[in-house]
Amino acid sequence: MSSPSESYLVGLIGEGVTPSLTPPMHEQEAGQLGLRYLYRPVDLSTLVPVGGDDGGPGDTAAQLRELLHRGRDLGFNAFNITHPCKQLVLQFLDEVSDDAARLGAVNTVLIRDGKFVGHNTDFSGFTTALAAGLPSAALDSVVQLGVGGAGAAVAYALLKAGAAELTLIDLAPARAQERAEALGRLFPEALVTAAPAAGLPAALAEADGLVHATPVGMHSHPGLPLDLDLISPDQWVADVVYRPLETELVLGARAKGCAVLDGGYMAVGQAVDAFELITGIRPDAQRMREHFLDLIARGL
Amino acid sequence: MSSPSESYLVGLIGEGVTPSLTPPMHEQEAGQLGLRYLYRPVDLSTLVPVGGDDGGPGDTAAQLRELLHRGRDLGFNAFNITHPCKQLVLQFLDEVSDDAARLGAVNTVLIRDGKFVGHNTDFSGFTTALAAGLPSAALDSVVQLGVGGAGAAVAYALLKAGAAELTLIDLAPARAQERAEALGRLFPEALVTAAPAAGLPAALAEADGLVHATPVGMHSHPGLPLDLDLISPDQWVADVVYRPLETELVLGARAKGCAVLDGGYMAVGQAVDAFELITGIRPDAQRMREHFLDLIARGL
Repeated sequence: MSSPSESYLVGLIGEGVTPSLTPPMHEQEAGQLGLRYLYRPVDLSTLVPVGGDDGGPGDTAAQLRELLHRGRDLGFNAFNITHPCKQLVLQFLDEVSDDAARLGAVNTVLIRDGKFVGHNTDFSGFTTALAAGLPSAALDSVVQLGVGGAGAAVAYALLKAGAAELTLIDLAPARAQERAEALGRLFPEALVTAAPAAGLPAALAEADGLVHATPVGMHSHPGLPLDLDLISPDQWVADVVYRPLETELVLGARAKGCAVLDGGYMAVGQAVDAFELITGIRPDAQRMREHFLDLIARGL
Repeated sequence: MSSPSESYLVGLIGEGVTPSLTPPMHEQEAGQLGLRYLYRPVDLSTLVPVGGDDGGPGDTAAQLRELLHRGRDLGFNAFNITHPCKQLVLQFLDEVSDDAARLGAVNTVLIRDGKFVGHNTDFSGFTTALAAGLPSAALDSVVQLGVGGAGAAVAYALLKAGAAELTLIDLAPARAQERAEALGRLFPEALVTAAPAAGLPAALAEADGLVHATPVGMHSHPGLPLDLDLISPDQWVADVVYRPLETELVLGARAKGCAVLDGGYMAVGQAVDAFELITGIRPDAQRMREHFLDLIARGL
């Protein structure tokens, strides 16, 4: 029979998700585990609005709500949610996990007994990534560049993992300030501060490690997000960019002798955790990473 | 990758479809063929309307349209369509096969390059069933009991298979008359007539075979649809009821020595043809029937 308990139908809702590697990651791992599992990208930027919608950008929330409801009707078990819907989706949920509520962002919606239940595996995925790829990283003092969507989840993960001092730096200083204050309230035992871009050298000079969470280094935005001379070999460096996997930052930091975490770890980590939430089965994280690396190597 | 060309997501839209055997039939066969294939029942009778719908029965068409459109958005490759939507769906299609248009009913909608393309595998499934289960059945004169949804498809299939005389009998004589006239226009070379229920003995006395297409004999409507004395051992008997597979009619006719086609053949036939339309791969009809029989035997 095709009951939800014996097969899994999952979607990824967001803009530009057609080339996402998350669907094949889930499907391949499910195949290894003998599960009937289908994962469909649902690209908001290519959808034709139905009904009376005018299709304008203001309709994204209504479109998201429709997709969730009709997805439930059509037998979906879960959705991953990505840009620009991770905050928007909150209003449509029946329940939200504590961490996702604190973080104010949901990237995984489970459909359980007709109810929508939100989780966040971006932050937990980075936690997993850190444990897998940089198990001995000191977290006494960390500098983070970029506090957008991925950045917010990463900062939350760092603080939850025990970071004592976290300095947030963003090209939009007000956003860094706002995020620092919000995180400071959530983690009063930590010292979370925002610094202007000009403060990067001073902040990094005292840091154990650097997390990079801006888009710089992606295929579409090549380059280095900071001067490599600011990094010393005894510091660890984590990048969230994974296309390419070997960003200029990753290559440069590795060449200096730094311990390095590439962006693939977080990409795989969020998928590992989402897969477990959806199926109740802990997948083989190493096998998923190998498959991910294979997909990347094939230019997908 | 999860592109539609390499995996298949299919739904069955209709009322009360949750226990349908079509989803497991498709999924099991796809598994045998090594295809990633998920088939979800979408039961209209259990859906919660979204948006401004009042959820009344008058909204079935709007609901169907929504499901088709959002299904396309969510990555569905095809839908099977059943009661009460086989006619309703026509207005939402971009293309319709010749047979489905002539029959005025669609049970399979393919989504091709964003377009909805309608087909009917109820009639072709019965054609296949007849060829597989009653290959030597004479079609010079056939009596058919019941001209509802399944009955319309069966009558069309009989005429397309070359039935020379077809007598339609229904408890609603006007419906039988209307159907006979419509089919007579489509198959001018055949003699299609309607007869009142009282005319059954006379019509059957001259017939090669009988097709039964009313709900009588189902678990929920047990019994015989006609007096078995009216049937002679040299006549063939086909039933469209398949729950149970061994209806009183099937058992009774078989006991008399008639060649008998149980309703499972048509149920499997429509699934075989739909599967081929969806995937482009002709499935193993015999294997699908064996699986179907196994599901029935397990009380599903």
